[in-house]
Order: sequence, then C-alpha cells, then structure tokens
Amino acid sequence: MSKQPSLRQKIYTVIFEAETPGGRNFDVLLLLMILLSVLTVSLESVVALHREYFDYFRILEWFFTIIFTIEYILRIYSSPRPIKYIFSGFGIVDFLSIVPTYLSFFVLGSQYFAVVRVLRLLRAARIFKLTRFINEGQILTQALRASLTKITVFLGAVLTMVVVIGSIMYIVEGAERGFTSIPVSIYWAIVTLTTVGYGDIAPATPLGQILASFVMIMGYGIIAVPTGIVSVELANIEKLSINTKVCPSCHKEGHAPDANFCSNCGHSFEKA
Amino acid sequence: MSKQPSLRQKIYTVIFEAETPGGRNFDVLLLLMILLSVLTVSLESVVALHREYFDYFRILEWFFTIIFTIEYILRIYSSPRPIKYIFSGFGIVDFLSIVPTYLSFFVLGSQYFAVVRVLRLLRAARIFKLTRFINEGQILTQALRASLTKITVFLGAVLTMVVVIGSIMYIVEGAERGFTSIPVSIYWAIVTLTTVGYGDIAPATPLGQILASFVMIMGYGIIAVPTGIVSVELANIEKLSINTKVCPSCHKEGHAPDANFCSNCGHSFEKA
Amino acid sequence: MSKQPSLRQKIYTVIFEAETPGGRNFDVLLLLMILLSVLTVSLESVVALHREYFDYFRILEWFFTIIFTIEYILRIYSSPRPIKYIFSGFGIVDFLSIVPTYLSFFVLGSQYFAVVRVLRLLRAARIFKLTRFINEGQILTQALRASLTKITVFLGAVLTMVVVIGSIMYIVEGAERGFTSIPVSIYWAIVTLTTVGYGDIAPATPLGQILASFVMIMGYGIIAVPTGIVSVELANIEKLSINTKVCPSCHKEGHAPDANFCSNCGHSFEKA
Amino acid sequence: MSKQPSLRQKIYTVIFEAETPGGRNFDVLLLLMILLSVLTVSLESVVALHREYFDYFRILEWFFTIIFTIEYILRIYSSPRPIKYIFSGFGIVDFLSIVPTYLSFFVLGSQYFAVVRVLRLLRAARIFKLTRFINEGQILTQALRASLTKITVFLGAVLTMVVVIGSIMYIVEGAERGFTSIPVSIYWAIVTLTTVGYGDIAPATPLGQILASFVMIMGYGIIAVPTGIVSVELANIEKLSINTKVCPSCHKEGHAPDANFCSNCGHSFEKA
Repeated sequence: MSKQPSLRQKIYTVIFEAETPGGRNFDVLLLLMILLSVLTVSLESVVALHREYFDYFRILEWFFTIIFTIEYILRIYSSPRPIKYIFSGFGIVDFLSIVPTYLSFFVLGSQYFAVVRVLRLLRAARIFKLTRFINEGQILTQALRASLTKITVFLGAVLTMVVVIGSIMYIVEGAERGFTSIPVSIYWAIVTLTTVGYGDIAPATPLGQILASFVMIMGYGIIAVPTGIVSVELANIEKLSINTKVCPSCHKEGHAPDANFCSNCGHSFEKA
Repeated sequence: MSKQPSLRQKIYTVIFEAETPGGRNFDVLLLLMILLSVLTVSLESVVALHREYFDYFRILEWFFTIIFTIEYILRIYSSPRPIKYIFSGFGIVDFLSIVPTYLSFFVLGSQYFAVVRVLRLLRAARIFKLTRFINEGQILTQALRASLTKITVFLGAVLTMVVVIGSIMYIVEGAERGFTSIPVSIYWAIVTLTTVGYGDIAPATPLGQILASFVMIMGYGIIAVPTGIVSVELANIEKLSINTKVCPSCHKEGHAPDANFCSNCGHSFEKA
Repeated sequence: MSKQPSLRQKIYTVIFEAETPGGRNFDVLLLLMILLSVLTVSLESVVALHREYFDYFRILEWFFTIIFTIEYILRIYSSPRPIKYIFSGFGIVDFLSIVPTYLSFFVLGSQYFAVVRVLRLLRAARIFKLTRFINEGQILTQALRASLTKITVFLGAVLTMVVVIGSIMYIVEGAERGFTSIPVSIYWAIVTLTTVGYGDIAPATPLGQILASFVMIMGYGIIAVPTGIVSVELANIEKLSINTKVCPSCHKEGHAPDANFCSNCGHSFEKA
Repeated sequence: MSKQPSLRQKIYTVIFEAETPGGRNFDVLLLLMILLSVLTVSLESVVALHREYFDYFRILEWFFTIIFTIEYILRIYSSPRPIKYIFSGFGIVDFLSIVPTYLSFFVLGSQYFAVVRVLRLLRAARIFKLTRFINEGQILTQALRASLTKITVFLGAVLTMVVVIGSIMYIVEGAERGFTSIPVSIYWAIVTLTTVGYGDIAPATPLGQILASFVMIMGYGIIAVPTGIVSVELANIEKLSINTKVCPSCHKEGHAPDANFCSNCGHSFEKA
C-alpha cells in the first residue's frame, strides 16, 4: 500500500471512495450530472419544449449517456470484483441509467425510462456520509424497521376492509354511477380511506353516501394508527440512543452521553 | 388420547388445528383458495372480462363453491359441538361464503355477495399464530380498545359538529349549488372535515367558502386528537410490556424495573 | 328540606337533576326527543320526501315544538333563578330550539334553523355523567386547553402563510383559471394546505403547479405540528393523573393509584 | 439618559419599543392598520366590488400607503443605525409594503403585491411579547429546528420517490389521460402522496389505478413519519423545560429532578 498506486487504484479511489478530496469532488460533480440529466428527461417530455428544442434535447441526452457510460466502464475496470459490482443493486441501476438512450434507436419513447437515473441519487448520498444526515437517516430507518411488523398487521387489516367496502359499494352504487366493477370500487375505497378523495368516482345514492361517510370517519380514525406506531418507535430509539451510560458504581442507568459524574452517587465516569 | 384416533378426530386435527404439519398445509392451501376465489369474484365484475371469459368464471366459481361446501360439511361433521360452530362468527362467515353462488340460480347478480369470503382470511390468520405477528396484533388491538372511550367521546363531538355545520351550509348555499338537503350537507361536512374532499359538492358563495374554510382549519386541528390518543395508549402499553417485573409473592405484574418492593404486597425484590 | 316538597321542587328535581330515577328517565326521553326532532328537520329538507309527506312533517314538527315549549316554560317556572337560566348558554339554546317553528308562519324556510336543537344534545350528556365518559371527556378537554396557546401561535402562522400564498397564486394563475380574487385564492390555499383538495379550483400553469407543490409538501409537513402538540399534552395529562401517589416515608413519587406499598422503601400505604 | 430626551429619542421609544404605554398603543394601532390594509387589497381584487367601489378603494389604498410611508421615514429618521434597519428583514418588508401602490402608476395590477404587508404582522407579534405566546412560539420553533435534519432526510426520500412515481405514471397513463408530461405527472404524484387529491388529473387505466393505490397507501403510511418526528422532539423539549434543575456550581442545565449529583462536575445537590 505504501508503494506508488497504479492507475486502476487511483481511479478506484476517485470513483468509489468519498473521503479523499478527489473522491469528494467526483461525487459532487456526479450528483450535479444526475440532477441535470433527470431534469433533461423530464423537460423533454413536455410536448411544447420537445418540439421547439428537439435537437438540444438529443445532444444533452447523448452527452449525459456517454458520460455515464464512461463512468460505468471505469467502475467495472477499477472494481476489485467487477462481477459482484455488475450484479449489485447500484450496478444494475447504473446499467439501467444508460440503456434507455441506446434502446431509443429501436423502441420509440423508451428514452423516458432514463428517469431511472434518479435512483442514482442514492449513490450521491455518500457526500453526506460525513455529516449528521447519515445518523438521522439511520434513526428514521431503524424506527421504520421496528414498526414494520405492526404496520404489516395494520395494512393487512386495512386491505381486507378495503376489499369488503369496495364490494359492498359496487352492489349499492352500481356500474352506472362510476363503480363499474369490484376492482374499481376497491380503488375508490382506497382513494377514500386514505383521504385522497379525487372525486372522479363519488357515491350518488343516499345509501352509498351513508356508507361512504362511515368509511371516511373510519379512515379518519385509523390514520391515527400508523402515526402512533412510528411516534412510539421513534421515541423508543431516541431514548435508547441517548441513555446508554450506566454508572459502574451504583448501576443507575439513563445518564446523558456527555455526563462526567453519576447523578445518583457522584461516581466519576473518567477513566483513571 | 393414546389409542388410534378415529377418522373424525383426524379430520378435526387437520381442519381446526394449526400446530400439526397436516393442519399447517391445510391452512396455507385454504388461504390460497380464499385469495383466488376473491380474485375470481372481483375480476368477474369487470364487464369486459365477464363477457369474454364467461364460461371460465362459471367453472371457477363453482369449483371454489364446491370445495368450500365440502370444507363446511367436514367442519360440521368433525366439530365436537357442531351447533356451536354453526352459529359462531366463523361458522356464519363460512356459510355466507357458499350461499351466494347457489342463490345465483334464483337471484341475478347475487354471486357478487360471495366477496364476503374475504372475511375468511381472518381464519387464515392462524397460520401466523406462531410468529410475532399475533403479538403485535394484540398490542394494536389493546391500544385501540384502551382508546375506545376517548375516541367515542371525540366522535360524539365530531358528529354533533357535522350536523350543525351541515345544516348551516344547507341554509347558506342552498339546493341550487349542490347542497340539496340537510343529509346531503352533512355528507359534505363529513367529506370536508375528514379532508377527503371529493369536490362533487363544493361551496360557491363567498359566505359558504368562509364557513368551509373554518371547517377545514378545524378539521386540520382535530385530526390531531385521535392520533394523539392512539399514540399515548400505544406508548403506555409498550411501556407496560417492557416493565414486566412480576412480584414472586403475589404475582402482580407491571412493576417498574427499578422497584425494590412489590407495590401490592410489600414483598422485597432483593435476592437475599 | 325534610318537609313535603312542593310541585315546583318536584318539577325541578325531574328536569334539572340526573341522579334521581325520575330525572334519569326524563333525560333519556329528552335525548330521544331531540334526536328524533333533528332527524325530522333533516329529512324534511329532502325535496322528494318533503313533497310526499308534507303533512306528516308539519304534524311532527309542531309536536316536537309544543313539547319543547312546555319543557321550556317548566324550566323557567321551576328554576330558582329564572332570569339567570334564560340568559345562560343552555337557556338560549333551549329558546332558539322552539322559535324557528313559530317564525315559519312569517319567514319561509326558517324552520330549518330548528336544527340548532342538536346543540341540546350537550344537555343530554348529563346522562353519561355517572360513567367513565365524563372523565375521558375531561382529559380530552384538558389536553386541548393546555395545547390552546401553542395551537393559537401555530394557527396565526398558518393564516399569515395562507394570505401570502393566496395572493401570490392570484397574481400567478389569474382570474381566468378560477383564481378570481385574492379571497378566493386564500380559500384555495386553505383547501390545499389542509389536504382537503376539492379540485373546484386547481392550478393550471406550470409556475402555479410548482408553487402548489411547495404548498402541499409544506402542508404535509405542518400537519405534524398540531398532532405533536396534542399528543404531548395528552401524554403529560395522563402521566399526571396516573402518578399521583407519593410515599409518605421516602417521598418517592409516581406510585400507581392502586399501590399498597411503596416500591422504593416498602412502606405500607394503608391508614393504620 | 437622565436628561430630557430629544424628539428623535421620543419617536424611537414609541415606534421601536413595546414596553412603554405609547409604544404599546402604537403597536396595537399598527396591527389594526396592517389588517385593514390587507383586507382592502384583498377585497379590491374581487371584480364586482372593484367596479362598484373603485373610488373608495383608491382612497383607502392611498391612505394606508401614505401612513406607512410616514412610518417608514420616521423609522429611518429615529433609528440609531438607519442603514442597518433599511437592509434588515423588517426594513425590506416595510419598504415592499409601500412600493406597489406607487408602482401602480406605471405597472397595471402591481397594487396587489401590496399584500406583502401581511408579513408586517410579524412585527406586530411584539404586542404579545410580554405574554406566554412568545414562550410557546419558541418551544414550537425549537422543536421544528431540532426536527429539521430528520425532516430534510425524509423530504429528500419523498422527492426521489415522487420523481420515480411520476415518471412511471407518465409512461403508464400517457398524455391523453391528463399525464401530459413528466413534470405534470410529478405534480400529480405530489397531489396524491400528500392526500390533497384535486382530481384534475386521475388515473384511468387499470394498471395506473393499481399503481396509484400503492402510492396512496404508501402516502398514508409515510404521513406518519413527520408527525412522529415532531411529536418526539416536542416531547423532548418539554421534558427539558420541565426538568430544569441547574447545577449551582457549574451551571449546567437539564438535570433530572431526582438527581443527587451534577452529571458534569459531580457537585452534590444536597443542602448541607
């Protein structure tokens, strides 16, 4: 490691590591490139802009694709285990980011699939690695993972409800009032229970409106459940991550991480 | 019990118990059957599919009905107390799951009532009995039950509000702007207060829009109440389920982890 | 008080008190009457029903009005301080409950104001006085009162935001896209920020949609604030109402209300 | 300071300070003026009113503008550091409050920008300085600031999701069903995920409705996250503001109420 690093090693450091100044700059540049390329694909889909600036979009599109292709090849070249990289989550996203443009020769409209590039932003998250963001992100992820079983049970109950409600409304309101089939009625039940309420389908019969009122009040009540679950888990995790200092003398728990003395017996927490 | 089990006992074990391999497999198969039969009824209600695949739907429908009928008869046959089973919640759902198809000979469209089968999924929940799901489900149910009185009081207040608001809006906006009657206006008030907001009925006069604004901001504020209730109850229950220091003398549960004496009988928790 | 009560005292006991069997029955009957009279007014407003059952509605309407008028007169007669009763909150509601029907001789449609009777349900709440409902209701009211200052500050901030957003959207979208004036645009901002989203007014220009997106995400974020406030206050009040037992020997707080011994020093909480 | 104050000092006391009776009255008057002027601009934008009361609006508009101009000049005159005031946040808002009316000579419709005056209400918040409002406001602000990092991480994740969902829906539903471009589809995704649900754009294909259902249920779940974050932070801050046992030796705050020794310097909290 102390001898002169090879070109491959140098590339690896810049592309895969975020701690060196080179790696840092590369990541910032990459983040910018991804954002601009996603913006290009998005704006290209606007008909008025697409017609007027067709050529510019083509050029930008190919510019980003070639850049990302070179990056992809360099990643494979410099990676110590290229096969593992190719089939990793990031490797697949990197591949899917460049394929749509090449495919657009053969399949019309396929270039819009290039928005998958937005997933590459997750890679850019490394820039924030050294900051407090990563820590907060971990707490959130941890809280969500801890709530997962409860939320699964809850969602199971909600889905059963939605199927029953949708079927009843299909029978009550019928096809001529927009509830054209049971799947469509289930879709309506989801739109209503989540309080989204598009209004593309809405009950018109008195009985349907009474049933819908029950569904809405129920939805209002059960929106409380996932919120309660996540709140409690977040509070638990925060409590655990704060109160991790135990007094070695009187074994009282719950000291703040920056405490120097035990608040119960006055024992010093210093090493000596 | 140690002698050879009869056929009836064998059937009972497979159908009613989940702990044996046979019972386990039966439950997984049943879960699959229920899901497929619900899917069949749902898709059958889609007009385009109904026309094209009419015969297939008939066959599938009867296939599931016959399977469930046989299962229902076997349950009655093997149950030690058949009458009790028939009139239990599960027994009624099992019965309602097969009746609609037979009724469809006489009453058109009655086969859609067969979606009641989705309620049978609750029975399949037994499969998860051995996992942590059941425990989490109990915590949720317990939290909801503990919140029930508070949520009832809250819902009573909300319903009174909704009647008053609906009546005022009926007088302010009037029939020509969609508020055709007080019940319809109450329906609108529920749609608005729960933030569903279909937009099929919306205030059009300045005074109506001002009143609606108050209702919305109020709804925004009171959505907080059920959430707060459930969060607090969930937190309480989790706290209790963590602090399960049980008194070895009087077996009272729920002592704080740092308690030195039982709060019920005064028994010392110290070892000696 | 030990001598024979006068007729006036007897009426007072039945009408104003809920503890005696007579008072109890009166309250249940009153609750039923109020519910039925509100239902009558509501259904009367449905055009189809109004036409068909016009006479029945008239009769029912006058029946309830006369009953409530007699009750009102008896209340004034039996009350020890009639003037104070007449100008109390309940007295005014009682008066407003009977006036609309008499006014309907002179003013068309005024009978619908009789729905104000629903407010009389609050009086019927006395029936629940002896149950746990009143206690839970107090906890909720207490939590809301404790949150009031915070929620006022919060609502002040929201209202300022809504005025600024509405004005900007009026300039951006303009009258031809439904944002016909600043008050209407403020109404739209409230509809959007509270996530009601009728869709009667919706941004159509790209700039308007971008601004609306910010408003929605903001609304999504700030919906958290009142919920958080109420949750915390509820938790505080529950904690206080549970942990109200202090050990007289070691002064440790936080014993459960049904504790017999101090969990810290084992001191008995019994009187002797 | 003990000598006779100059006119400039007197003006400064009235305009910039809220503690004296003069300053107090000035603030109340200013608050009223701002509210009335915002109301004037709002109502002026209503076409019907604008036509009928054109002259009154002109007069009121100029009345408020001249008052605010005099106030602005007096503020600059009496301020000890006029340049600093002019370029402070409040100074800029004060300036922007009067400019639109003067500009309306040259630019049509620019007078509506005068609603920026509503931001001046923040200045009027000084009236509440002496009350408990300011304290509650600080707790809220503190809780939001503490949640900021977590909410940023959360919003980053939501925005990435919204771009991916919007792009997929653009491909699935297509321009002929209202999803005219990727930016519009992203707008739809935000409208749906925040449960606003205007209904101006709604999925019409079965695949689109299935995808939308997933988005809605997801939105339902993740609405829990910011609520949980703010609740926990609010609870933490309230806890700290209650447990303000301060060490008399090193002045470190935030010791638990039952602490016997300072956790920072080991100082004993016992009296002796």
